Amino acid sequence: MSFSGAESFRKSSPVDTEWIERELSAFLERARSQEESRPIVCVTSGGTTVPLERNCVRFIDNFSKGTRGALSAEQFLKAGYSVIFLSRTGSLLPFLSECQEDMATAFSVSGPGELQVSALAEALRTFHSCTEDPGTFLHVPFTTVFEYVQYLEVIARRLASHGRLALFYLAAAVSDYYIPWAEMVEHKISGAGPLVLELQKVPKLLGELTSVWAPHATVVSFKLETDEEVLLTKAKAAIQKYGVDAVLANELHSRKERVTLLVRAGEGRAAPIHCSVLRLDPSAPPGSVIEEQLVGAVVDLHRQRSRR
Amino acid sequence: MSFSGAESFRKSSPVDTEWIERELSAFLERARSQEESRPIVCVTSGGTTVPLERNCVRFIDNFSKGTRGALSAEQFLKAGYSVIFLSRTGSLLPFLSECQEDMATAFSVSGPGELQVSALAEALRTFHSCTEDPGTFLHVPFTTVFEYVQYLEVIARRLASHGRLALFYLAAAVSDYYIPWAEMVEHKISGAGPLVLELQKVPKLLGELTSVWAPHATVVSFKLETDEEVLLTKAKAAIQKYGVDAVLANELHSRKERVTLLVRAGEGRAAPIHCSVLRLDPSAPPGSVIEEQLVGAVVDLHRQRSRR
Repeated sequence: MSFSGAESFRKSSPVDTEWIERELSAFLERARSQEESRPIVCVTSGGTTVPLERNCVRFIDNFSKGTRGALSAEQFLKAGYSVIFLSRTGSLLPFLSECQEDMATAFSVSGPGELQVSALAEALRTFHSCTEDPGTFLHVPFTTVFEYVQYLEVIARRLASHGRLALFYLAAAVSDYYIPWAEMVEHKISGAGPLVLELQKVPKLLGELTSVWAPHATVVSFKLETDEEVLLTKAKAAIQKYGVDAVLANELHSRKERVTLLVRAGEGRAAPIHCSVLRLDPSAPPGSVIEEQLVGAVVDLHRQRSRR
Repeated sequence: MSFSGAESFRKSSPVDTEWIERELSAFLERARSQEESRPIVCVTSGGTTVPLERNCVRFIDNFSKGTRGALSAEQFLKAGYSVIFLSRTGSLLPFLSECQEDMATAFSVSGPGELQVSALAEALRTFHSCTEDPGTFLHVPFTTVFEYVQYLEVIARRLASHGRLALFYLAAAVSDYYIPWAEMVEHKISGAGPLVLELQKVPKLLGELTSVWAPHATVVSFKLETDEEVLLTKAKAAIQKYGVDAVLANELHSRKERVTLLVRAGEGRAAPIHCSVLRLDPSAPPGSVIEEQLVGAVVDLHRQRSRR
């Protein structure tokens, strides 16, 4: 099997991965010393940037703030997983997302000149109580699409030794296009006329993840579209083409209330695909989020897959 | 004089400006009722986004967090100006930038389970004491380059009646390129092969600002480059081509320590240009910022220009 596109993508950008190798080693050692059979998930979150210049002033970005990834990581921690949180620098963190998004949620005023910090303090308390055990939570921040892809590979190759206990929950909004380092201008782009940007397709690394990097792990990817019609077609294609175990398909405007889960029902890429729609119950108590259902369904799937 | 490029740019995007017309009216009425001769500055800050799809998932952005604009607005408020702060949604605010950038600056821990909020409280106190007078501070947030340009035009045409008392301090990092609404795809871009993006040049609206929108105002624009060699050439061209009164020229990596001020010394676009380098004194007390000098020099310039 040839992955020349992937190879040239990786070679095209200078990314230091030494620090994450070190942090991962320490984290996995602590995680392993606790429990032999504890499941471990790599949750990816937030959007990647695509630099347009080497001395980067401009970049292509994605609207994602990492809400889905942060809320999902909370659920995985509650479900007893070790979590590696590969997320965009500055995007939302589990248990802290509401306070990060909204000062009014983080603080309230108790009297003239007095600020109540109880909401933030409570959020921090929950964050620490769920993540303070060594080996429970590792945050790996990325910014560019080059960093994301290379960090994911490092994590995946290391998690390969965890066999079926490893799960990948790929909620990050990864750019589909990039400008190779070799073709990137050194300085800030400028000129009188129109600007033509030629972007290459970011190679789909899902195939490498499922077949080479961590072949026994369960892999759940995401698909987001603004056009409902193409959404399910593309989600199915991701299963058939890259051999992922499931796809969570969401449409931009309804993504917080409704997500379709597509599961490969059997071995091999040609296996039948089972679809189910997960919905947020409109009568659910305030603060309920659809990520409870998403992660619940994925944890069930991972249990089935890891028992095989 | 023909501004057909500008006209087609404005027509190319649907932007609602009614709300800002309303807010400006109320603000300027309050500002005027206080003092006839109070100077007023429009400070622009932060980067603009360029959407790549109408149902926007992806956009081109700029690294700016609005530090220069926020720190400069502080100095203008201290100098007694009314400030209209046209800044990117979510970018830094005057007096609050340190707390916004760094949780460790906003809070400190006083004891187990206790959070000190004194730094944030002090910053908020300063912010409110400088901005609470009606007519002193108006925040106009933008996100896209279309919003930025149209809001700036609305502000400029309204400030025209303030004659020489009006100052424009254009610190925002405005995109040079955009995709016209008519050429923008409806849904998230996708496809198998490379992606070619054809971006049009955003028309330079500085010429309209200095000659049509607010012809008696003092206009100071910024130039940022990563290549020192082209920086001064381009800064001079901005004066000669668009008739701005001064340009603050900065190089990306040294911009917090050194900025070159280019001033048109005389009437007309062909007038000689006077250059001076403003530097942050390395022995200045901690917390000193180069914006004190930038705004100091610009306020002096505005005084000279408005006495004419």
